[in-house]
Amino acid sequence: MTIQEESLKLHGEWKGKLEVISKVPVADKRDLSLAYTPGVAEPCLAISKDVNLSYEYTRRWNLVAVVTDGTAVLGLGDIGPEAGMPVMEGKCVLFKTFGDVDAFPLCIRSKSVDDIVNTVKLLAGSFGGVNLEDISAPRCFEIERRLKEECDIPIFHDDQHGTAVVTVAAMLNALKLTKKDINEIEVVVNGSGAAGIAVTKLLMSMGLKKVILCDTKGAIYEGRDNLNTEKAEMAKISNLQLKKGSLKDVLVGADVFIGLSAPGMVTADMVKSMAKDPIIFAMANPTPEIMPDEALAAGASVVGTGRSDFANQINNVLAFPGIFRGALDVRASDINDAMKIAAAEAIASLVSDEELKPEYVIPAPFDPRVGTAVAKAVAKAARDTGVARL
Amino acid sequence: MTIQEESLKLHGEWKGKLEVISKVPVADKRDLSLAYTPGVAEPCLAISKDVNLSYEYTRRWNLVAVVTDGTAVLGLGDIGPEAGMPVMEGKCVLFKTFGDVDAFPLCIRSKSVDDIVNTVKLLAGSFGGVNLEDISAPRCFEIERRLKEECDIPIFHDDQHGTAVVTVAAMLNALKLTKKDINEIEVVVNGSGAAGIAVTKLLMSMGLKKVILCDTKGAIYEGRDNLNTEKAEMAKISNLQLKKGSLKDVLVGADVFIGLSAPGMVTADMVKSMAKDPIIFAMANPTPEIMPDEALAAGASVVGTGRSDFANQINNVLAFPGIFRGALDVRASDINDAMKIAAAEAIASLVSDEELKPEYVIPAPFDPRVGTAVAKAVAKAARDTGVARL
Repeated sequence: MTIQEESLKLHGEWKGKLEVISKVPVADKRDLSLAYTPGVAEPCLAISKDVNLSYEYTRRWNLVAVVTDGTAVLGLGDIGPEAGMPVMEGKCVLFKTFGDVDAFPLCIRSKSVDDIVNTVKLLAGSFGGVNLEDISAPRCFEIERRLKEECDIPIFHDDQHGTAVVTVAAMLNALKLTKKDINEIEVVVNGSGAAGIAVTKLLMSMGLKKVILCDTKGAIYEGRDNLNTEKAEMAKISNLQLKKGSLKDVLVGADVFIGLSAPGMVTADMVKSMAKDPIIFAMANPTPEIMPDEALAAGASVVGTGRSDFANQINNVLAFPGIFRGALDVRASDINDAMKIAAAEAIASLVSDEELKPEYVIPAPFDPRVGTAVAKAVAKAARDTGVARL
Repeated sequence: MTIQEESLKLHGEWKGKLEVISKVPVADKRDLSLAYTPGVAEPCLAISKDVNLSYEYTRRWNLVAVVTDGTAVLGLGDIGPEAGMPVMEGKCVLFKTFGDVDAFPLCIRSKSVDDIVNTVKLLAGSFGGVNLEDISAPRCFEIERRLKEECDIPIFHDDQHGTAVVTVAAMLNALKLTKKDINEIEVVVNGSGAAGIAVTKLLMSMGLKKVILCDTKGAIYEGRDNLNTEKAEMAKISNLQLKKGSLKDVLVGADVFIGLSAPGMVTADMVKSMAKDPIIFAMANPTPEIMPDEALAAGASVVGTGRSDFANQINNVLAFPGIFRGALDVRASDINDAMKIAAAEAIASLVSDEELKPEYVIPAPFDPRVGTAVAKAVAKAARDTGVARL
């Protein structure tokens, strides 16, 4: 049986990967009067006087909504809210397993930005945070931006920022290994969707100056045609050298390739055209932009992919459970860049200088130290930047 | 320590009465590939081809949203969505404990009917049913009506229909005991909010002809002033005798008093003015319209209240867990009157003819037979009325 066949069979047996359970016994009248009426009136009244007590007397302190509209599910595209649910349930399983976060999936039957924003906003009092998931670009940008403005709980689009955090973590160690400086290097990011843009922005907030974002039409630069709002904004702040041309053209002399695009976009010759000791993160799934063995044979110093069967797997599960754990622990009102950078540095730091080598620049997804280390770093960064409320 | 003080203390220790847990292990790469990528793509694709498979491959088959806007929480009134959460969590605990239903609380930050309807409607693909709770009248009527029209899953406002079902159950046995016929008797319902109207309607659908609904201004009849939309509608179908006057006036000669109003509304003299063997359900909480000992001394044959410290407790927990269990078991698209009547009859039937007596017309809330009996009857009624999809 293939993994696919077995997974389908198991999903039919599981009939849902989550369960909502009661933490309190209700075996007699007295239990009922404490967990429900009349006793329950007391925490209700307390919260009505001070809404912050909702974090003390209800599950809100540990509860994250995993929200999608089903428009960009895995590599499957727009399959609808109900069909997105198995992935969202899976995401919630990972939240619980790796971060001890209670996560609950909400799949919204609308692709309208207004509908999605309103729905999440109206439910924000029931949750301690919101993880947006598998919402297609460019709507995901506006949805996240508006929710961050209008909600008093952290909003995090994992496809953007989770990917960015883990990519940056791997890159920090790859740069250390190759003795390159983030302020000096030239990076080419191929794929200007949600993840590509987020990676670019996070790297820039860490000091990267020379970065070129590419889409299917090649390098994005100010003044190019066929740019949507987000790409036009990126054109203003990236590629200040105004390099033009195809991916192949701009990759010449670059230090790092970051692919969040499509299989086979990079050839051995393109790797050979890059600067000395090039770093390759080829994260197209399931088939990378270039296969690791080919990239290494062409001179790559470090290669990472999204796959578990190669070295250096760039897997979001390294980031989001710990990021929310840390944010919830200090009741953060936001997940800001400082918290994302702290998460990336915490992940990178788990690979010691002695262990660091081309085939080990990032911890494995099941490394038990990751969740706690990320949570601790994120909580500290939240405090340091004034978004912690505890 | 009072129940109130102890409940507050326990709520602080529980920090939420619910938990969202993972039903599947994720201990290694293989687990991850089955519960999440790449395996999870298979159930996603299956559901995208046939949306009904969301009931097979996700938790939807057993999942009910408990939805409020926090406007009519217990006797506390409009305390807001966050402050309503302890009650909603408690409700979910009861769903799980008595019906093995996974219930999840959603407290909406808006009192707008449109907002509430849209939010629930957009999330209907993530749940198998919706329990509306503690939403103030008359908005609750429009919200329920519109959601029933626009959603493909059962919508149930427990404050209306749960109360109606349990009241009817108790009344069926009280009528049996006093040898009265529902087609012949005269009933006075005091309190024309959500519950009072629902009880009246359900009794009428079972054959009751003579029923007078009262509000604080006395009997409701066609042509009276000060009637909102719902009361005006009730005026058209009830009180066909066009009786006018105060509660005291219309109670003269009535067989049954049903109170969903306020403490102390009924006096001993009023009970004495009723027909022979009057039946009294005085369900104002925590203090009934008349205390049981006083009503019995005045000649009442059967007295029920909402309280656990008197005989014949009219408690919704006898109904809603089993009603949803039955509806979910046959994937019902609706919870209709036939299903509610079946639930009431199933509850009543658990008191055998031998056991039936004035102080035992309804099973206790913790009677372990109730949930299953109600579920079975409701599932059958759903099949018989064509709303079952399994």
